[in-house]
Amino acid sequence: MLGNFAYCNPTKLYFGDESLKYLNTELPKYGANVVLIYGGGSIKKNGIYDEVVKILKENGKNVAEIAGVMPNPTLEKLYEGVEIARAHKADLLLAVGGGSVCDYAKAVSVSVNCDEDPWEKYYLKFEEPDCEIVPVGCVLTMVGTGSEMNAGAVITNRETKMKIGHVFADESVMPRFSILNPKYTLTLPHYQMVSGIYDIFNHICEQYFSGEDDNTSDYISEGLMRSVINSSRIANKDPQNYEARSNIMWTATWALNTLVAKGKSTDWMVHMLGQAVGAHTDATHGMTLAAVSLPYYRHIMPYGLAKFVRFAKNVWNIDTAGKTDEQIANEGLAAMEDWMRELGLVMNISELGANEEMLEAIAGSTIVMTGGYKTLEHNEIVDIFRESL
Amino acid sequence: MLGNFAYCNPTKLYFGDESLKYLNTELPKYGANVVLIYGGGSIKKNGIYDEVVKILKENGKNVAEIAGVMPNPTLEKLYEGVEIARAHKADLLLAVGGGSVCDYAKAVSVSVNCDEDPWEKYYLKFEEPDCEIVPVGCVLTMVGTGSEMNAGAVITNRETKMKIGHVFADESVMPRFSILNPKYTLTLPHYQMVSGIYDIFNHICEQYFSGEDDNTSDYISEGLMRSVINSSRIANKDPQNYEARSNIMWTATWALNTLVAKGKSTDWMVHMLGQAVGAHTDATHGMTLAAVSLPYYRHIMPYGLAKFVRFAKNVWNIDTAGKTDEQIANEGLAAMEDWMRELGLVMNISELGANEEMLEAIAGSTIVMTGGYKTLEHNEIVDIFRESL
Repeated sequence: MLGNFAYCNPTKLYFGDESLKYLNTELPKYGANVVLIYGGGSIKKNGIYDEVVKILKENGKNVAEIAGVMPNPTLEKLYEGVEIARAHKADLLLAVGGGSVCDYAKAVSVSVNCDEDPWEKYYLKFEEPDCEIVPVGCVLTMVGTGSEMNAGAVITNRETKMKIGHVFADESVMPRFSILNPKYTLTLPHYQMVSGIYDIFNHICEQYFSGEDDNTSDYISEGLMRSVINSSRIANKDPQNYEARSNIMWTATWALNTLVAKGKSTDWMVHMLGQAVGAHTDATHGMTLAAVSLPYYRHIMPYGLAKFVRFAKNVWNIDTAGKTDEQIANEGLAAMEDWMRELGLVMNISELGANEEMLEAIAGSTIVMTGGYKTLEHNEIVDIFRESL
Repeated sequence: MLGNFAYCNPTKLYFGDESLKYLNTELPKYGANVVLIYGGGSIKKNGIYDEVVKILKENGKNVAEIAGVMPNPTLEKLYEGVEIARAHKADLLLAVGGGSVCDYAKAVSVSVNCDEDPWEKYYLKFEEPDCEIVPVGCVLTMVGTGSEMNAGAVITNRETKMKIGHVFADESVMPRFSILNPKYTLTLPHYQMVSGIYDIFNHICEQYFSGEDDNTSDYISEGLMRSVINSSRIANKDPQNYEARSNIMWTATWALNTLVAKGKSTDWMVHMLGQAVGAHTDATHGMTLAAVSLPYYRHIMPYGLAKFVRFAKNVWNIDTAGKTDEQIANEGLAAMEDWMRELGLVMNISELGANEEMLEAIAGSTIVMTGGYKTLEHNEIVDIFRESL
């Protein structure tokens, strides 16, 4: 049942191998002071940094930089960036990188003019911004998080070992524009590519696996899942396949821009589990999700059996003749496991640095959400992590 | 292949049985002068008019009206509305009705401040507006056209018997907000309901049937088609089923808000054929599409066989074992025909008032587009219309 909801996603997307030139269309809309935000410097090696800086200069921009935004951006880094953006009187925050860089830019954007502590306000109290939000633009170089077209921003507090994502309700937090050039993703290492692919797939799963009803969102989700499965198999064998990489990039955007969540009561428990692993190990986001997914889904399957049967039939084309619902559902998850192994995803958390002794602590820092098929108890979370070892 | 494109759709949607109250959220954003636009007066019978006027008054608006917007709104009516909006110094055009009323409001919005003749500029030369566009809001009472979240506006010139749709490239032409309350659609006559349903389905088909490549848009389209087929069967038996009607309403919006056209080279030939029939008969839009679709698709099938095979498998679950591609494709179209007959759609143009003597004239006013599987010659168009009789 779709229920009552609002939908608004004003982010302007420029997609394709020639999309960077549209920075020239967007930059004149903002004041002169731009803060360029990027990560570990790969954009300097592959030339994207030089191209972007050239365009900024041609548009007469006064540029400051926040460099070294790490995967799982930290609260310390957020504080540092806020100071830089304030000192520069930023008119635009231009993120050039993957989801962590875009997330980070959004976290800065709601904190520059905020008098309160952003961790306290946005990540512990989950409040909405009541200050002026600095506009954000993105040039995406990695695919998976969907951060380029949503109002989400995940920040990690290393001190308290909490990795928390806040999806802001206010669409003003969404990037004003994002430039999506699939070519930029062609040079990513295989590990990063498949990690992003699993992140996409899991975003769809998180929204799909809730409710029993017949909802347009689930049909769109099935289409997106079929697309990403198909393109990922092509890209896994041939990472330079532009068509496959462009479909993956586009699917990523639509997997997490609120569309397929409409009418769904999502709990995002795979992310809660994976983020707890990430906070304790600093592992790559998509791989933390991959490592906990199957133990989690096998655990909740009995509570949402009809949806797992539908998943098996509509996403994995499982032949249902003469089988029980449990058999069909299990075959669906087995097909998903085959696909995950084919891609070379990390299938257990011990590979990511977790061990038996850490399970209680990781489980303790897992945020438990409601809205899915089963609200997890602490002992169930420990069991799922143990299964994931 | 997705290619290079831009995507931006800033329309804010309020969806659900309580969505009308969000007019109170939107109205304060605009000046005092509102032009209320509606059709034949059904909104006065079902109480929506009174509810909307009450909210307008409570928000202190100064309201003028354009009443009697007809299905297939005419150029004369456009000229009349432009005069009313100019005289009222309209700050907001509030359309309350179906696709024709929304289309009409958008046509007025780009014409109020335009010095040139709108028919000449927008419908013959297909130019973009270079004047200030008056904001449009919609309260949707019928489902199908997707006009609530796109920049399209179809206008009919009765004098020249031309019905032309212009999908503006400028996203400022899109409604600023649209209120989608599925309850408003529950009282529609069956004929109108299924006509809207076919309009939705055909919008998706028009975008799906182009290209041979593997494109995320096609996967989303298949999901939307499966959703509308499923919900339409429920609504056809039980028109008061809110869940089915809400899924249909939501699918309609996403079938024609530019998303599933990304990466596709569409020709919209079913609409070109149907609109020519509409211009000569004034028949209901969705029924003109239904009446010409199967003869058209059977005609172009050999030129896009692989896609028709995919359509049969992924949309209609046709069992492919031991069959040729032609057989599979034909079975897909036969399944589509069964569904259309089940809904009670008009399956030929003679029921809509066309006859053998009119075929040449209707074919003559059919706009021929490229970008699909086959660019039609005049004699092919006549043949398709003859098959549709």
